Amino acid sequence: MTRTMRAAVLHGAKDLRVENRDIPPVAPGEALVAVGSVGLCGSDLHYYLDGRNGGNVVRSPVVLGHEIGGTVAEVGPDVPNSWLRATVVVEPAMPCRTCAACAIGRYNLCDRGACLGSPPTDGGLADYVTVPVTQLHRVPDTLPAQAVPVLEPLAVAVHALRRAEFAPGESVLITGAGPVGLLVAQAARAWGAREITVCDVDTARLEACRTLGIERAVEPAELGGLRVDRSLECSGASAALPGVLAATRPGGRVVLVGTMPAGDIAARLGLVQRYEVDLVGTFRYAASFSAAVDLVERGAVDVTSLVTASFPLHEAEAAFSHAVSMAGLKTVVDCGQGTAS
Amino acid sequence: MTRTMRAAVLHGAKDLRVENRDIPPVAPGEALVAVGSVGLCGSDLHYYLDGRNGGNVVRSPVVLGHEIGGTVAEVGPDVPNSWLRATVVVEPAMPCRTCAACAIGRYNLCDRGACLGSPPTDGGLADYVTVPVTQLHRVPDTLPAQAVPVLEPLAVAVHALRRAEFAPGESVLITGAGPVGLLVAQAARAWGAREITVCDVDTARLEACRTLGIERAVEPAELGGLRVDRSLECSGASAALPGVLAATRPGGRVVLVGTMPAGDIAARLGLVQRYEVDLVGTFRYAASFSAAVDLVERGAVDVTSLVTASFPLHEAEAAFSHAVSMAGLKTVVDCGQGTAS
Amino acid sequence: MTRTMRAAVLHGAKDLRVENRDIPPVAPGEALVAVGSVGLCGSDLHYYLDGRNGGNVVRSPVVLGHEIGGTVAEVGPDVPNSWLRATVVVEPAMPCRTCAACAIGRYNLCDRGACLGSPPTDGGLADYVTVPVTQLHRVPDTLPAQAVPVLEPLAVAVHALRRAEFAPGESVLITGAGPVGLLVAQAARAWGAREITVCDVDTARLEACRTLGIERAVEPAELGGLRVDRSLECSGASAALPGVLAATRPGGRVVLVGTMPAGDIAARLGLVQRYEVDLVGTFRYAASFSAAVDLVERGAVDVTSLVTASFPLHEAEAAFSHAVSMAGLKTVVDCGQGTAS
Amino acid sequence: MTRTMRAAVLHGAKDLRVENRDIPPVAPGEALVAVGSVGLCGSDLHYYLDGRNGGNVVRSPVVLGHEIGGTVAEVGPDVPNSWLRATVVVEPAMPCRTCAACAIGRYNLCDRGACLGSPPTDGGLADYVTVPVTQLHRVPDTLPAQAVPVLEPLAVAVHALRRAEFAPGESVLITGAGPVGLLVAQAARAWGAREITVCDVDTARLEACRTLGIERAVEPAELGGLRVDRSLECSGASAALPGVLAATRPGGRVVLVGTMPAGDIAARLGLVQRYEVDLVGTFRYAASFSAAVDLVERGAVDVTSLVTASFPLHEAEAAFSHAVSMAGLKTVVDCGQGTAS
Repeated sequence: MTRTMRAAVLHGAKDLRVENRDIPPVAPGEALVAVGSVGLCGSDLHYYLDGRNGGNVVRSPVVLGHEIGGTVAEVGPDVPNSWLRATVVVEPAMPCRTCAACAIGRYNLCDRGACLGSPPTDGGLADYVTVPVTQLHRVPDTLPAQAVPVLEPLAVAVHALRRAEFAPGESVLITGAGPVGLLVAQAARAWGAREITVCDVDTARLEACRTLGIERAVEPAELGGLRVDRSLECSGASAALPGVLAATRPGGRVVLVGTMPAGDIAARLGLVQRYEVDLVGTFRYAASFSAAVDLVERGAVDVTSLVTASFPLHEAEAAFSHAVSMAGLKTVVDCGQGTAS
Repeated sequence: MTRTMRAAVLHGAKDLRVENRDIPPVAPGEALVAVGSVGLCGSDLHYYLDGRNGGNVVRSPVVLGHEIGGTVAEVGPDVPNSWLRATVVVEPAMPCRTCAACAIGRYNLCDRGACLGSPPTDGGLADYVTVPVTQLHRVPDTLPAQAVPVLEPLAVAVHALRRAEFAPGESVLITGAGPVGLLVAQAARAWGAREITVCDVDTARLEACRTLGIERAVEPAELGGLRVDRSLECSGASAALPGVLAATRPGGRVVLVGTMPAGDIAARLGLVQRYEVDLVGTFRYAASFSAAVDLVERGAVDVTSLVTASFPLHEAEAAFSHAVSMAGLKTVVDCGQGTAS
Repeated sequence: MTRTMRAAVLHGAKDLRVENRDIPPVAPGEALVAVGSVGLCGSDLHYYLDGRNGGNVVRSPVVLGHEIGGTVAEVGPDVPNSWLRATVVVEPAMPCRTCAACAIGRYNLCDRGACLGSPPTDGGLADYVTVPVTQLHRVPDTLPAQAVPVLEPLAVAVHALRRAEFAPGESVLITGAGPVGLLVAQAARAWGAREITVCDVDTARLEACRTLGIERAVEPAELGGLRVDRSLECSGASAALPGVLAATRPGGRVVLVGTMPAGDIAARLGLVQRYEVDLVGTFRYAASFSAAVDLVERGAVDVTSLVTASFPLHEAEAAFSHAVSMAGLKTVVDCGQGTAS
Repeated sequence: MTRTMRAAVLHGAKDLRVENRDIPPVAPGEALVAVGSVGLCGSDLHYYLDGRNGGNVVRSPVVLGHEIGGTVAEVGPDVPNSWLRATVVVEPAMPCRTCAACAIGRYNLCDRGACLGSPPTDGGLADYVTVPVTQLHRVPDTLPAQAVPVLEPLAVAVHALRRAEFAPGESVLITGAGPVGLLVAQAARAWGAREITVCDVDTARLEACRTLGIERAVEPAELGGLRVDRSLECSGASAALPGVLAATRPGGRVVLVGTMPAGDIAARLGLVQRYEVDLVGTFRYAASFSAAVDLVERGAVDVTSLVTASFPLHEAEAAFSHAVSMAGLKTVVDCGQGTAS
């Protein structure tokens, strides 16, 4: 007897339907995760609005959602029972594990893998999702269910700081005080940054920043004279680049975290060349969830307060609409267990 | 009794005069170098043509020349006599040695130092030049005098490969087959590069490349499909950037070696962001002359054949004119000892 | 109909029998390799002589052999046919690919994997061996079949030099001129080492060294005064340690490549502490075969002349006896295709 | 008119005399520091007890003291007046700044420099000491004068953690809960360590550890089963080595911080070799004071409570006797300004 579950299926641009689907079978090495909450991020909104994200196009109905928290409901025959009932966050990108990139530990650059919620691979906006146990990371039971998915962007922040070659005692500039920027700022603080400056054009976001204890929250016009060791551009706005490059010291490093527009972007590359200011990028994460979980376990990073809106699964479309409005910080969709629907 | 010498003094744009000057006194810690040959590089040509190089302006008469080879003629009272008659290349940039950049070994980024031949500091286009012995590096006596100055751009190449985080066994793309590009290519080969591709628009330069034993010398149109580990942009042409970025593998690294134009440069920074292709710069060198000398001593890099034109000191202006014409590769000026003048 | 093949099976200490076995079936993702030659290394001799190697004991009959060269005879249903007839060297250690060590690219430290020829996993001393294709590396067809297995210890040498944090232009000391030492020396030369010194107590081995073009081949008494950047201890003799530590410059690095005896080893660790001489180890390799193949393809490392004795598979016991005698350098066993038996 | 000051002069083993000396003149580039407090460390005790420390022998009367805090009383003619009255900690080791070690930023390994308080160079156990301003680091005025010298061992801790290649999120073991061990533990905590274990045989010291907020303070017998990322051996006891090596995970790193005895030390180097556990040392510091000051400024490290005994300068001998007794943690000598004497 097959069992069914609800899933929010994207059929095309702005065509999101909550449907019944079979609960996927649990193969060896896998676990069935009862989804608690799913966070929405920028790429989800692109798929929802445009039916595509960059070069990746929705060609057949797909379940979105790659920021996934939940509890293990069933395990495959060869998976230890100790996983049952564990609270977990899902690492959604599944690399091939054998190519040259994977072999040296840069598995986020693997071009032969798949990622939950990245078409054509179904994601977590459903009651259940089946995942290889190697993709699961345990999180403290005490964390609110809605906060668990935020571990995923926190892993992004961890990887971004590593790409920044950030070392304790260094000063950091973060442009863009959205969820990722606020997570980078908090992680940098927990890792011993000397001085942290967050820059945004939105005063409400700067205020959220101060609430989280990051005191230096400034508008772009206030960046003049800054000379930081490491800069993390989290806004994705190419207009932020001149300020970021100018505010980074010779020999420093700028990391492009936010998704930059396709096509040409103008920048004063002479600063890169003459002053050895590294300009580097960051994509997803590699071996970063463990450090993310540690930051939350120690209470060093507050993920809970970043969740500013939640919707039940059957109102998934409303969740997307709300997220598109850019109000608040992180919007989550509550799935399955314990959610009236 | 003061002694005099000849020096090629730049009084302003295109106003170069060979004049008599006092031989500078030799202070403690210094050596008087009888200049053999001086190489001309792009920054020298900027000073000659425009009276400035980027933001550095010729405000008073100055002796140019920072690629300096010669022999030690006198030493200061506290300098070991073993330096006398040594054949040396001069490391022209003199950092403060105490600032934060110097303390961590990135002394090329020191902003409190001076550089021989960089206004207002006099350089080596003269019969003699006085230099702290800490700036001297011994070279084999067997090297032709005209080839000694080429050790300086070879130090540039060494530093650029280090900034590329080049490791033996990796593939390398070099755009721009001028002197620096050809030195980078040879150094990469000597250091175990897997495959080396040099790209230029000038077929004569590509031929020079093949003569040096670098087989893959191609035009820009032939770069399609290349995916190298490390790219070194040595042309200084912003038009080369798209090809360089596209030809570098995910997780690879692009080094801007050639001086990029001031102001905004358009580039597909999305590749930097999404594929973690590092875009970094390189400026001069730090602790690089020793490795440069080693490459020449072992016969692994041919500096001699890069010298394609030479002029005596009293024809220094002709040397600049020739270099400006971009004919050949490296133009040198023969000074002092043994040069009919 | 099952097909059979010959295999040299170790039943216990000094009990090696050439027996008939079923040719193993080829599962998806696998290839059947027709074994050309298999090299014998120190760990093989330990198993043969003592029935154990360190803590790993032969508890049931096992096929030894982890230095394996051959050609692909069959491929699993999902493996590209382009692998057929390819000449390959086998990477014998098969990590789990998902643990923390694997995730960061240090898969040689994975403690959940298996290794061909390491009991209880069968190895390559047979007509055929089945291997996941991800463990195969193509080598040039022009390489003599007996030289192919030497790519495996060359991968050891590559990893050891990386663990040494060796950079081109640095000086290197190698103690122990056995196969691994000679491969390290050649790889260091190909990667631009400034000066290479090989030290051994055996004058015949020092002569082999000079034949390979490594000029500075010395006895231990001649090490006095040496101050190298990187040292690679390849003899496994704890008596070599004092000389190695003393011959490494402050801030340099010593790599223990040869298997050190179990239990306490006395060393002047004060040098490690006071002069920041790193003392590190190396185990197998990670992502190293590609660079090893490159070195052989470019003709930069001579693996062929290291093979100083060969025996057909049915004389495998004679091969072990010969290898135990320590005569010559590398002993190989010729298997299967084309070997009279 | 020469001015005089008091200085504690060591004439030989156990022969310490407080004498009058001329206040040293202030040369260009220098500052006269009115010494506030001087901390005593293990090397000072060796000089006091034995007239030597390792190979360095007291051959003529010398002023000890290299952990020096104070205020700038005078500056040389070319030194900015802004230094006057600044509260400073002195970086006592003065490298040559031009040798190969200095050029790459490892100036702690310079063998041509001098160190205040390291015979024959006079140190800070006096009313005044003259120091190049490049050796001064400003500290907050709010720090108690007796705590300022502790910035020097904190710089040791900073450098040791860097030598450990410690990264935020990693677990750390510290053996030896003396001043350096407690500073390493606090710095590791401030830099985001996942879990910190301090081990000592002295229960009072373990209690001091808990008072500082480091919860896991254990005796050696309790180390069983630990597998940390980084270990810092701060006791200098070779007996601690087996436990440290066993408690460090494969691929981890052990740093020898405490001064190990001269001569051979037995250790299971097989762990280093087989499991790639790096065994490295640390000596003084390089570019570390800035991070040390930052840790104290942010309140992340408590240096004040480590000072458990103080003596006025004229009772310097009593200070040494007290320190030799190993009671408490850090003993300081209060000099000059504001100290009744």
